[in-house]
Amino acid sequence: MGLLQETIQSVLPHDKESRKKARDRLDQLSMPHWALGRLMDLAVDLAGMTGSIRPKVARKTMVTMAGDHGVVAEGVSQYPQEVTLQMIHNFVNGGAGINALARQSKANVVVVDMGVSGDLSTLIQEEKIKGCSQGKGTANLALGPAMTQAQAVGSIESGIRLANELGRQSDLFGTGEMGIGNTTASSAIAAVVCNKAPRYVTGHGTGIDTQKHQHKIEIITKALEINRPDPQDGIDVLRKVGGFEIGGIAGLILASAVQRKPILIDGFISTAGALIAKLLCPTSMDYVIAAHRSVEPGHAYMLEFLDKNPLLDLGMRLGEGTGAALAMNLVEAAVAVLCEVATFEEASVSKAVE
Amino acid sequence: MGLLQETIQSVLPHDKESRKKARDRLDQLSMPHWALGRLMDLAVDLAGMTGSIRPKVARKTMVTMAGDHGVVAEGVSQYPQEVTLQMIHNFVNGGAGINALARQSKANVVVVDMGVSGDLSTLIQEEKIKGCSQGKGTANLALGPAMTQAQAVGSIESGIRLANELGRQSDLFGTGEMGIGNTTASSAIAAVVCNKAPRYVTGHGTGIDTQKHQHKIEIITKALEINRPDPQDGIDVLRKVGGFEIGGIAGLILASAVQRKPILIDGFISTAGALIAKLLCPTSMDYVIAAHRSVEPGHAYMLEFLDKNPLLDLGMRLGEGTGAALAMNLVEAAVAVLCEVATFEEASVSKAVE
Repeated sequence: MGLLQETIQSVLPHDKESRKKARDRLDQLSMPHWALGRLMDLAVDLAGMTGSIRPKVARKTMVTMAGDHGVVAEGVSQYPQEVTLQMIHNFVNGGAGINALARQSKANVVVVDMGVSGDLSTLIQEEKIKGCSQGKGTANLALGPAMTQAQAVGSIESGIRLANELGRQSDLFGTGEMGIGNTTASSAIAAVVCNKAPRYVTGHGTGIDTQKHQHKIEIITKALEINRPDPQDGIDVLRKVGGFEIGGIAGLILASAVQRKPILIDGFISTAGALIAKLLCPTSMDYVIAAHRSVEPGHAYMLEFLDKNPLLDLGMRLGEGTGAALAMNLVEAAVAVLCEVATFEEASVSKAVE
Repeated sequence: MGLLQETIQSVLPHDKESRKKARDRLDQLSMPHWALGRLMDLAVDLAGMTGSIRPKVARKTMVTMAGDHGVVAEGVSQYPQEVTLQMIHNFVNGGAGINALARQSKANVVVVDMGVSGDLSTLIQEEKIKGCSQGKGTANLALGPAMTQAQAVGSIESGIRLANELGRQSDLFGTGEMGIGNTTASSAIAAVVCNKAPRYVTGHGTGIDTQKHQHKIEIITKALEINRPDPQDGIDVLRKVGGFEIGGIAGLILASAVQRKPILIDGFISTAGALIAKLLCPTSMDYVIAAHRSVEPGHAYMLEFLDKNPLLDLGMRLGEGTGAALAMNLVEAAVAVLCEVATFEEASVSKAVE
């Protein structure tokens, strides 16, 4: 049995006893009942994930996975492909959006080459990024499958191995990504898995105009006609219209679930990774927290498929993990409510009059 | 001229030049244009408030103002009045919701007696809370004005003095409150200022049932009929149907504006304080950031009156400053985006193809 199957079979659902204990304590906190709303719901979830009413979330790891996409040859993006490589250097130098927001939330950023078209050997040797490349970018999904079966499984298993390595110094994961062209792959995944016509799940990505947007919809429509991915089969969807970084994110999610650690998914592309993870292992969704609602129109359908209500809605559409980094503060806050607030009895505060 | 009038006359609007400089830099950041959405809008606002493209927000002060309300005699709350006093002890002991969330966002909590019915002299002497009491609770607003003209002006001026003292070690303020009965006063303020019938702006507060809710609406209706506050006159509204902590919050806002420092307003009661501040000095709203959307139904009308779109919407209704404490992370994140993210040129990243 391979690593992927082993991982999937090791995922357990939430610990019900810890959920109940957390809820019992939160019911007694010295405040009107459940007055901190979704923070308290989140605290119950965190107890269920970690199997503890004192969930650990202090050691935060943001994993930003990069990959290139053959479909950029179709002119679907506003930016040239070289930007993926340039942005990796920006991440390493600490100058990107994710660096600023991860510093704010005290998260460690781990940048991963999942399959970038360009030479990253020096950064990998210097241990500034992780090398998990499955190839120099995917094939053009408008002409045929984006990757081989081996690459699809390999990208997910690389994510699993990485999460298992990083798990030794992480309590809370966040997912992020970089890859010119990856909103096209993610829209294709959304269309297949959520069973929506491409026009409903295709947005303006990095900022394309109306004409390019129409072209992007046509390319995705063509990709689905040519590839006909099986909407029930996560590997088939990933292989035909996905991306290496999307597979890596799916792997991260599966491994986090096995480790019983919460994982915050960022925006549109990260959520595409979560769709793949859900198809492979629905129970893994017990460990997934939706960080924010992206401006990308397809994101709402994805979140509906996952039955997740995101914590933040700030009109963001950057990716990299920026929304997940911001939401780490809310996860920490939820734990603080559960672990630090006194009950009515502990605080000697009079209860509500019945 | 009194402190209040002096303060009002010293409020200046945003610095347009700093707003422009911030916008110019954000336009060039190494990401798709304005891809961090509302964080970037907030960064522009923070530059305008502080008159700097490197706004300082590191020293965070959460001011939690407490006051009692004579209207509790009408049976409008689920909790007995003594809870206000008990919760102050809970704040001082670090066991309340605001303590947990302020620790998470690295904010210093300052608890203020604005007019609690109970003896707080020991805590004041020990400098564990600030003493700014305007009386042992307000009068019952269902029978006549909640306070005298001197108390109304005094509560606002106490807030101003306190903010001026705290300003020496604060870059960013948050407002919070505690006071059994204060959703009744806040609903009355919302009804007057937003010109809505009490039933539209009256919620379930700490958790009253349908019958008590109906009674609360009737009490507010009666209070407005008896007092007839002038909706254009902030002092008149505060005096007739407000509270000491609500006046204190209005004072904090006015003084923050003079100091050119951002102030995060928390939920329903804090926003009632902001309504009073806006009536007294519309320009002071340039310094106000709405932290979150409360579950209280009147909050939406208040935010509309202030023309503010809150940062968070997490189903919260606790007060104390909890929403403001959470949102301090977002303010810090907005500054990080402005100050720490490299431009395309600095990061040597290719720009979008036109």
